[in-house]
Amino acid sequence: MADIQVGIVGATGYTGSELVRLLTYHPEVTIKAVTSESYKGEKFSTVHPQFRNFAEMKLISVKELDKYKLDLVFLALPHKVSMGFVKEHGLEKFKIIDLSADFRLKSADEYSKWYGVEHIAPELMENAVYGLPELFRSKIRGARLVANPGCYPTSAILALAPLLKRNLIDPNEIVVDSKSGVSGAGAKPKDATHFPEVFGNFSAYGVHTHRHTPEIMEALEEYSGQRSNILFTPHLLPIDRGILSTTYSKPLKPINNELLSDIYETFYRNEYFVRMVNDPPSVKNVRGSNFADVFVSFDERTNTIITVSVIDNLVKGASGQAIQNMNIMMDRIEKTGLKALPLSP
Amino acid sequence: MADIQVGIVGATGYTGSELVRLLTYHPEVTIKAVTSESYKGEKFSTVHPQFRNFAEMKLISVKELDKYKLDLVFLALPHKVSMGFVKEHGLEKFKIIDLSADFRLKSADEYSKWYGVEHIAPELMENAVYGLPELFRSKIRGARLVANPGCYPTSAILALAPLLKRNLIDPNEIVVDSKSGVSGAGAKPKDATHFPEVFGNFSAYGVHTHRHTPEIMEALEEYSGQRSNILFTPHLLPIDRGILSTTYSKPLKPINNELLSDIYETFYRNEYFVRMVNDPPSVKNVRGSNFADVFVSFDERTNTIITVSVIDNLVKGASGQAIQNMNIMMDRIEKTGLKALPLSP
Amino acid sequence: MADIQVGIVGATGYTGSELVRLLTYHPEVTIKAVTSESYKGEKFSTVHPQFRNFAEMKLISVKELDKYKLDLVFLALPHKVSMGFVKEHGLEKFKIIDLSADFRLKSADEYSKWYGVEHIAPELMENAVYGLPELFRSKIRGARLVANPGCYPTSAILALAPLLKRNLIDPNEIVVDSKSGVSGAGAKPKDATHFPEVFGNFSAYGVHTHRHTPEIMEALEEYSGQRSNILFTPHLLPIDRGILSTTYSKPLKPINNELLSDIYETFYRNEYFVRMVNDPPSVKNVRGSNFADVFVSFDERTNTIITVSVIDNLVKGASGQAIQNMNIMMDRIEKTGLKALPLSP
Amino acid sequence: MADIQVGIVGATGYTGSELVRLLTYHPEVTIKAVTSESYKGEKFSTVHPQFRNFAEMKLISVKELDKYKLDLVFLALPHKVSMGFVKEHGLEKFKIIDLSADFRLKSADEYSKWYGVEHIAPELMENAVYGLPELFRSKIRGARLVANPGCYPTSAILALAPLLKRNLIDPNEIVVDSKSGVSGAGAKPKDATHFPEVFGNFSAYGVHTHRHTPEIMEALEEYSGQRSNILFTPHLLPIDRGILSTTYSKPLKPINNELLSDIYETFYRNEYFVRMVNDPPSVKNVRGSNFADVFVSFDERTNTIITVSVIDNLVKGASGQAIQNMNIMMDRIEKTGLKALPLSP
Repeated sequence: MADIQVGIVGATGYTGSELVRLLTYHPEVTIKAVTSESYKGEKFSTVHPQFRNFAEMKLISVKELDKYKLDLVFLALPHKVSMGFVKEHGLEKFKIIDLSADFRLKSADEYSKWYGVEHIAPELMENAVYGLPELFRSKIRGARLVANPGCYPTSAILALAPLLKRNLIDPNEIVVDSKSGVSGAGAKPKDATHFPEVFGNFSAYGVHTHRHTPEIMEALEEYSGQRSNILFTPHLLPIDRGILSTTYSKPLKPINNELLSDIYETFYRNEYFVRMVNDPPSVKNVRGSNFADVFVSFDERTNTIITVSVIDNLVKGASGQAIQNMNIMMDRIEKTGLKALPLSP
Repeated sequence: MADIQVGIVGATGYTGSELVRLLTYHPEVTIKAVTSESYKGEKFSTVHPQFRNFAEMKLISVKELDKYKLDLVFLALPHKVSMGFVKEHGLEKFKIIDLSADFRLKSADEYSKWYGVEHIAPELMENAVYGLPELFRSKIRGARLVANPGCYPTSAILALAPLLKRNLIDPNEIVVDSKSGVSGAGAKPKDATHFPEVFGNFSAYGVHTHRHTPEIMEALEEYSGQRSNILFTPHLLPIDRGILSTTYSKPLKPINNELLSDIYETFYRNEYFVRMVNDPPSVKNVRGSNFADVFVSFDERTNTIITVSVIDNLVKGASGQAIQNMNIMMDRIEKTGLKALPLSP
Repeated sequence: MADIQVGIVGATGYTGSELVRLLTYHPEVTIKAVTSESYKGEKFSTVHPQFRNFAEMKLISVKELDKYKLDLVFLALPHKVSMGFVKEHGLEKFKIIDLSADFRLKSADEYSKWYGVEHIAPELMENAVYGLPELFRSKIRGARLVANPGCYPTSAILALAPLLKRNLIDPNEIVVDSKSGVSGAGAKPKDATHFPEVFGNFSAYGVHTHRHTPEIMEALEEYSGQRSNILFTPHLLPIDRGILSTTYSKPLKPINNELLSDIYETFYRNEYFVRMVNDPPSVKNVRGSNFADVFVSFDERTNTIITVSVIDNLVKGASGQAIQNMNIMMDRIEKTGLKALPLSP
Repeated sequence: MADIQVGIVGATGYTGSELVRLLTYHPEVTIKAVTSESYKGEKFSTVHPQFRNFAEMKLISVKELDKYKLDLVFLALPHKVSMGFVKEHGLEKFKIIDLSADFRLKSADEYSKWYGVEHIAPELMENAVYGLPELFRSKIRGARLVANPGCYPTSAILALAPLLKRNLIDPNEIVVDSKSGVSGAGAKPKDATHFPEVFGNFSAYGVHTHRHTPEIMEALEEYSGQRSNILFTPHLLPIDRGILSTTYSKPLKPINNELLSDIYETFYRNEYFVRMVNDPPSVKNVRGSNFADVFVSFDERTNTIITVSVIDNLVKGASGQAIQNMNIMMDRIEKTGLKALPLSP
């Protein structure tokens, strides 16, 4: 098969640089074009010196993208900018994997409610497939527009899907307490992500208002058929990479740890990237890799099911999952280019 | 009034050094004796070089303690060792503030169930007062043995006490999701606290088995009269100091944010060390200080009350609170020696 | 004596908040006015929530400063803005301690060469006293304008002054290799201080071009009479606070460790804030405090004198030293308000 | 060519786990045996959960090693233990790459002087080749025993070799000021590497006594023919991985930046793993990779050449370089299995 010809739109952020890190040695991909409006004309490695000698392509303006014949384009753009690109280019020229939130929700109303702006391409929303391969692989296969999941949702959905799919828990009594490293907030400096503010620190934010809440609920509903009501609380971890989500839910029927373990093992038996673990996992167990490690346990005393799941927010929570989606959409072996083991310590 | 003559038993750990940090400039205290079996004969500042020139006293063996006339002794000893000291010395010689867990629980059975050893001084357990001043000030005043609270419990109890006292929440549906810096695990090196293992990392541990669970429930029951059933999940934060606890509970009656805010403001109106805050607090907002910052919010969509509270685990979660207790027991102004403002950034 | 009436100009940065932290409990100071153009009208504790309940004064515009009768004003302003204030207000209204670099150098030419702008108040430069109390105490006593030293220079000058004063080393063969925490770069977010960029990272910057180079040389020359030529290399440490400087110099005459130790001990014998230490110090040994810990050693094999010195860049390297200067200028006991012991771990 | 059959002796430390991380996807290697005395019988992934599902081999005792037919053995053992293994097994059974310091120095006397014990296999020392491929590639090719370089020496030698080889600097006036992440101190918990002690901290250690000093000097002498006298000062960085070395040296003849740049570019032109960079590099630019980034600059004012070099201490400073050596010794393409790009942010 010929190499997949890809473009990356928006190369100066962390998801853009992570795509380049992972695609450079993907054996079936050629990176044809990488765009950046602020750095066009510069070499990619000038902006990201870690890639010196290995990503020396010139950054181009997105306006020049049409000069290239591309099979697939990754949009590593901010929310709200992405949908503009999709509207302008449509879905015929190339397949699109959008790493922003613009096509993750099902309705334009829900989008404008949580994101505070009108959706400008509502007619394309129904074309978008939510790109969590473990749950929606077959839809992804035929998609021309994949909405790559958010980092928090990836960690929460993978942990809760088996429970909701099997009707094991009360869908209205679910707490997701998540903790994320700072790269999840993007590459643009802000007061809240200034080093001295975050270092040695820890805080909750977006308490009961975070935008990933509806994304988690909609994806779980689409998959399990169950409408849930989830309380999601994000916290900012003073680390660069990694998300850990702890979930609490209430069983609807008698349960025990052995049964739970069986259910999860069966559910994820054929999934290369989801690893069921016997002890609560730590985020460095997946650093730099596309793995999601999931732990589940039942607490009899309080009649609560607890899950703890970890991912690297920039890999399984963003660019790695995008490549996993690309492999599926382009009919390649799903794990190609994503086999690197975690970097720990 | 004459200075309080104090002894500190166990000076090489973090609670011991933190006592010295805070007591050195306490205007009504003289540190008469500091013990360490492993470093006896050495100067305190040899073990803790941050105190060079300011804590040059020689460390003595605990066996020499009786040479000194002391008003009060702080036990900065490991769990299980502390009760040996109390049993040996009794409650007549001096008042005791025990920073270990040995006298925090109400019954020897509960102690042995959670700590895995027999309690060797069960006859003294009923003399111990749980040293959380905001809830038990009057009992502390007359106590000869104060069990200084655990760090996690301090953060959780202060957040939940107003709700339980006012019968506002279901006592059987409470989740406490806590995150602690590593100094809470003590000064002794272990695999789990080796720098490269913790740095850039984050994990849950002791899932539904942590020993602070019964402590939280018992203290809240003693204070509110309500027996609760709490699910407590601790996590290890890659920072040196600080605890943040997020709690989730279910209102028993209609509630709103204004009402909640009033209840908490009223409850803590006269408390110097508890600060109600309007935004979710961060741990550096209290670093090095004896403050507990508490945030409360009601989420209508999921009908859940969320609290977020932060303390410095070595100050309000240990040595600062011990000094607060000392001030009360010795009839001094409660905040004496504890006025330092937080160190941030 | 009446309280010193002080104003703080520029309250939103780190040196401003650190001044408030330290002055709040200074027993002989009243903070009369704190200015901020961006936050005027807000409460100080809104901008710096760590001070909630304890620094509730309203921020005012610098234009309102003249309404207050002040003994002394701290300028916690950026370089280049400070000199505008001094030029406008002159030296008659109140004493000034300028925490910026604007009055640290001796000549307007040198200033414009290293800072890239013209000095707008060159006529006032000769009035400024370099505020390193251990070297220039008597001049500071009578000063109306004190240029508070830079953080790197403080750590380097204290380490090298005894050697140069005693003509022990070749003034043209001195290397200062310094490492600073990120708060030294200020509170304003930049790409280079964005959390994910600094976390887990380490780099050199400003190699042989850093502006603290002439400051170190001029202060040492003023003190010792020796014109030196110093190579200064700063590095960015992934921590919030703390500077460690390692210096390398060449003895001009036979030396040994005993002699070196005697020289330093004698030199700093009466200095409360400089502590000679026998082992290489670490930055947390001084965190939050006004101490400078200094280690010196001679390596016979390479005929080199090595010093290692540490300070908290926001305290002895900025606001603590400013208060030390204030105490001297206002004829108070020098250590008043600065006695807090270091926060470690 | 058939796969290289390798054994790893000592699998519980960081160099052992890093070897497994890198060799698992090396296309021409089969890991036949991994030994651990403390964990024999356990699965590798039990000790290192980041490798779950991907390194499920049972750990064996080193005594069972002879059951396997091996081409090459990596010794990931502590100093002093390694030489025992080499003495016992000799150099005929398999090629050996020793990641400890036991065969890095040229003489048993020098070894015992710096390491404080007698060398027990002095007769084998002359067989050992110092495994820095960029300098000693041809010797490595034929070696049966390679002494894999220390992490500090790798960073310092690569920076200084071009200068000494070309007689550009005074070999007796070289300062190497190095800063290393904590994983360089190994996986065994100690007081000095306990998380709360290192976090937010920074210190120098081993001032003018560190064992890597003679290693740097001997390797540079072997390569350049010049006997140098180097002052080496290590510092402990509060990060998990990464070394940055800053060197200062004195030119023997007129030099400028253009010339310097040419010399280094030429010197490393054909080296895949050494990247000359135009700005001072940061350690995350090489994290997880086998690259060494080197910067060089001349400071005219002080007549000093400064270099700044960075490596990942566990990759180019240990296991990655060991695999690079293996590739050379086994006649494979040198970069095989080592192409992963750095993980940043």
